Amino acid sequence: MKEFELIKQFFTKQAVKRKDVLLGIGDDCAVVSSTENQNIVVTTDTLVAGVHFPLGTSPKAIGHKAVAVNLSDIAAMGAKPSWISLAITLPELNNDWLSEFCSGVFELCEYYNVQLIGGDTTQGPLSITITAQGLTPEGKYLSRSGAKAGDWLYVTGDLGDAALALQHLKEDILTGNDIIEQVQHKLDFPKPRVLAGQALREYASAAIDISDGLLADLGHICQASNVGANVVLEAIPLSDAMKQSLLFDDSIDLALNGGDDYELLFTVSEDKKVGLQTALSHTGTAITCIGQINASQTISTTLNNKPVPIRNSCFEHFSSQNNT
Amino acid sequence: MKEFELIKQFFTKQAVKRKDVLLGIGDDCAVVSSTENQNIVVTTDTLVAGVHFPLGTSPKAIGHKAVAVNLSDIAAMGAKPSWISLAITLPELNNDWLSEFCSGVFELCEYYNVQLIGGDTTQGPLSITITAQGLTPEGKYLSRSGAKAGDWLYVTGDLGDAALALQHLKEDILTGNDIIEQVQHKLDFPKPRVLAGQALREYASAAIDISDGLLADLGHICQASNVGANVVLEAIPLSDAMKQSLLFDDSIDLALNGGDDYELLFTVSEDKKVGLQTALSHTGTAITCIGQINASQTISTTLNNKPVPIRNSCFEHFSSQNNT
Repeated sequence: MKEFELIKQFFTKQAVKRKDVLLGIGDDCAVVSSTENQNIVVTTDTLVAGVHFPLGTSPKAIGHKAVAVNLSDIAAMGAKPSWISLAITLPELNNDWLSEFCSGVFELCEYYNVQLIGGDTTQGPLSITITAQGLTPEGKYLSRSGAKAGDWLYVTGDLGDAALALQHLKEDILTGNDIIEQVQHKLDFPKPRVLAGQALREYASAAIDISDGLLADLGHICQASNVGANVVLEAIPLSDAMKQSLLFDDSIDLALNGGDDYELLFTVSEDKKVGLQTALSHTGTAITCIGQINASQTISTTLNNKPVPIRNSCFEHFSSQNNT
Repeated sequence: MKEFELIKQFFTKQAVKRKDVLLGIGDDCAVVSSTENQNIVVTTDTLVAGVHFPLGTSPKAIGHKAVAVNLSDIAAMGAKPSWISLAITLPELNNDWLSEFCSGVFELCEYYNVQLIGGDTTQGPLSITITAQGLTPEGKYLSRSGAKAGDWLYVTGDLGDAALALQHLKEDILTGNDIIEQVQHKLDFPKPRVLAGQALREYASAAIDISDGLLADLGHICQASNVGANVVLEAIPLSDAMKQSLLFDDSIDLALNGGDDYELLFTVSEDKKVGLQTALSHTGTAITCIGQINASQTISTTLNNKPVPIRNSCFEHFSSQNNT
């Protein structure tokens, strides 16, 4: 099968047909229209096999995750996702693999009315790059830079489960099978907080998605906002699966440094706290206050009101080599 | 050096600062604004080391080419390029390599006032995916589907030089050093026909960029427009370097099937021919009429008014394996 038939066969089979897509897959470019009084947000994320997902990951999970990590960035801006472009590099053509991969991509796209508008199919080591775009009312978007001393620090969902699943895959942790399945599903099929992100837009002062780990991503907010923060360790939300698997200290370590959670971390001023909680409850998203922003320009952690040293082992690409 | 310092150090050093970029590199997403009465065109192209460029290619050429192949798609739509997102997967961090790569990216971006608005840096086998966007007046874009029987078929520039350079690299062809340098430069630093594409917007009935080879890309126009075409072989523009290197038959074979030329192939109706030639001459782009569209739904070639069989060896990813 030739490349172009491949593209036609798999990538044009999506159900989503948006009115603002004037020309979709099949030309040199896609053409989209944006209405007045809107801004467009744009993000790009690459998943490399063996780096961003374990080599045995199912094609459907890879497709889902490639879309999810990008929609998570769109969510962190408070925007509504609209279009994605998909560049996939494959070692070989395999119809079954592609079919499953596409089902992972399209199921998530359909749920959020996101249209695949184009892409590229190339031969080489397995890797997927998606560029996702979203729409937001003019000037109304969240960023990392709006946090102020006194703002409260929140997260959506539970933290650390993806890291727990990865540790299990490395056979560092022995747990019961039902727990493994739960956390494995969270690693493979992360849910981008798209509705929560849009609900946050009117209330949060800063937001980021937790892809690198709570401490690392909080560090990004603090740096961009020129502030510091204290995190109350006993407040960090942990799943039942986590509590049943690990001791508190080890759970907190994964929650602080694990990454791959794709929950939202955000800040809100005292006067908008109630409004935010109400708005978020309408989206059905659990949120937890885990600390407060301060003027210190450093990150501290406390346990039962006592300062504890930060154990930071957060993930950084390339961090273990060529540290020039 | 950590990934985020890497991004900061290299990718924020560009000179282009567009007014329509509200938030550039450094947050979860970039934010851009588009004015009313505009459409946005979007394209994504991946370059894989050893597949889309020879392994010994200079980092500057790789950076240039990664941008150029995308701007070439924007040009084929008649649009003006505006923003790019860059996803780069690197086997290891190498400051000198990255610095040269970025100079290739930024020189071309600066020339066309294109801003790098975001991206992703990952570890793995060398590969670059760029998503480029461009702007065009509402409803005014070229596509592959507007060609009509009777329209004239044109190309910009000369064809086949990139393929000649590739053949030289494979040591199939022996030529003088000055010729090698000329064609090698065309392979490494293709010039996207950005100004020509915009000039074509008011005149051409269909357009495509020649990335897969003249015959393959003409096939895309014919299929999308539901027409056929005849190509006059002796009219195909060949560079002096090509003429000095190969016999006519071999030159034409490379021009028809070689790919990687990034010239524009376009069609124009009889009544717009003079207007188009005038508009293109203002951009300083050489164009050549190489045939005519017909209703046959097949592609034919003639030499000195006599039909000749098509020798089609055009490049297709995956074409030699897994042809299911």
